[in-house]
Amino acid sequence: MTYCVGLKLNAGLVLLSDTRTNAGLDNISTYRKMFHFENPGERVIVIMTAGSLSVTQTTLARLQEAIEAPDADETSSIMRAETMLQVATIIGNTLNRTRRDITEQCRDLSQQASASMIVAGQRAGGTMRLFLIYPEGNFIEATDDTPYLQIGEHKYGKPILDRVVTPETSLSDAKKAVLLSMDSTLRSNLSVGMPLDLAVIERDDCRVSQRRRIDEGDPAFMAMSAAWSAALRDSFVNIQI
Amino acid sequence: MTYCVGLKLNAGLVLLSDTRTNAGLDNISTYRKMFHFENPGERVIVIMTAGSLSVTQTTLARLQEAIEAPDADETSSIMRAETMLQVATIIGNTLNRTRRDITEQCRDLSQQASASMIVAGQRAGGTMRLFLIYPEGNFIEATDDTPYLQIGEHKYGKPILDRVVTPETSLSDAKKAVLLSMDSTLRSNLSVGMPLDLAVIERDDCRVSQRRRIDEGDPAFMAMSAAWSAALRDSFVNIQI
Repeated sequence: MTYCVGLKLNAGLVLLSDTRTNAGLDNISTYRKMFHFENPGERVIVIMTAGSLSVTQTTLARLQEAIEAPDADETSSIMRAETMLQVATIIGNTLNRTRRDITEQCRDLSQQASASMIVAGQRAGGTMRLFLIYPEGNFIEATDDTPYLQIGEHKYGKPILDRVVTPETSLSDAKKAVLLSMDSTLRSNLSVGMPLDLAVIERDDCRVSQRRRIDEGDPAFMAMSAAWSAALRDSFVNIQI
Repeated sequence: MTYCVGLKLNAGLVLLSDTRTNAGLDNISTYRKMFHFENPGERVIVIMTAGSLSVTQTTLARLQEAIEAPDADETSSIMRAETMLQVATIIGNTLNRTRRDITEQCRDLSQQASASMIVAGQRAGGTMRLFLIYPEGNFIEATDDTPYLQIGEHKYGKPILDRVVTPETSLSDAKKAVLLSMDSTLRSNLSVGMPLDLAVIERDDCRVSQRRRIDEGDPAFMAMSAAWSAALRDSFVNIQI
């Protein structure tokens, strides 16, 4: 399983992913699920992935090959596409083609290969965009009404986002919100696991303004987690029925 | 969808269910999902249901018929069974038989009829028991390590239970915990809905000690929900990262 969450706020984009992959419960590994593509000041794109690792890795490899191809142009390379909508379209098409290829390879198995992605970014002169790309390549976009998108195990971490995140939320509060959302998910689903990858793209910065890997036992994360547990228990005690 | 939760504490059993049923998103109704069977002082049994309404209603009707049958005995009637284990076995067998009958009737459809149940109760001289009965009739039981059981949409309401419920929890705190667990679920899943049915069985009371229907707009429930939201937001503001 996986948990990735992205917020689109007036002040910027905030992205958080876990790193646990598993093939069955007895085969657990750590793989990065957040990928940065940037030409600082001109464009920044961050992709987060959930689903079959062979689909997501092959999709990312194909996107990278298309960037490096001698004949790369605005219809094939996410680093040359003219808008973030075009970036999402290229990624969606690549994901869909990869998913179909691998499903065809695996047709002797009953299982289907599938994956979804969150794509965030901005081009100089354009606006910040945040997309969720479905396995078939179609996508939806975050709006002011619902300024966040999730992929993977989304339920445990959704209530805190619903309660505290609006487009006006500060980047500092947004980091806190995604980390607490992840904390709830880590506690309840063993197939979501540390370390975490956090990225912040400040508005109009067109680069990854902050990036941080949060390892198992990270003192700040542990302190936040413990403080949140204590605050919830205190709140519980003080509620009257 | 549905959300039902049961707690087994040293002080007693606490049970809460919603009442929303839906056949598709455009056909929503209210049906009771909590059913009491009692011979006050001698035995009390509460059943909560999730899943196909035709399966749960037919199962309950068959259990009632078996209670009223002229030849009812300890192997067929849950009001005569000698232990709560035997009660769970009768309910499991009836559920499984009903599920199979209805699946057979519906074999022209691709969908399967299925349902699960939570069964709580005590017989005079016996101990309190809390079971989750699967569609196939097998069951698991709440223990001191995990003193609660859930059926239906369980994810949104699980974190609060994990944080605050232990066998030592008081009945008053337990009512608060299940109501807050339901509150989180109501906010996140439209197919779980008011009114709610709450029941408390105090230890060795062998009757439903408290029962309450909580309607849409219930002032106490609304006040608790608002206070919990405010407490969560305050806690969020005060957490440092």
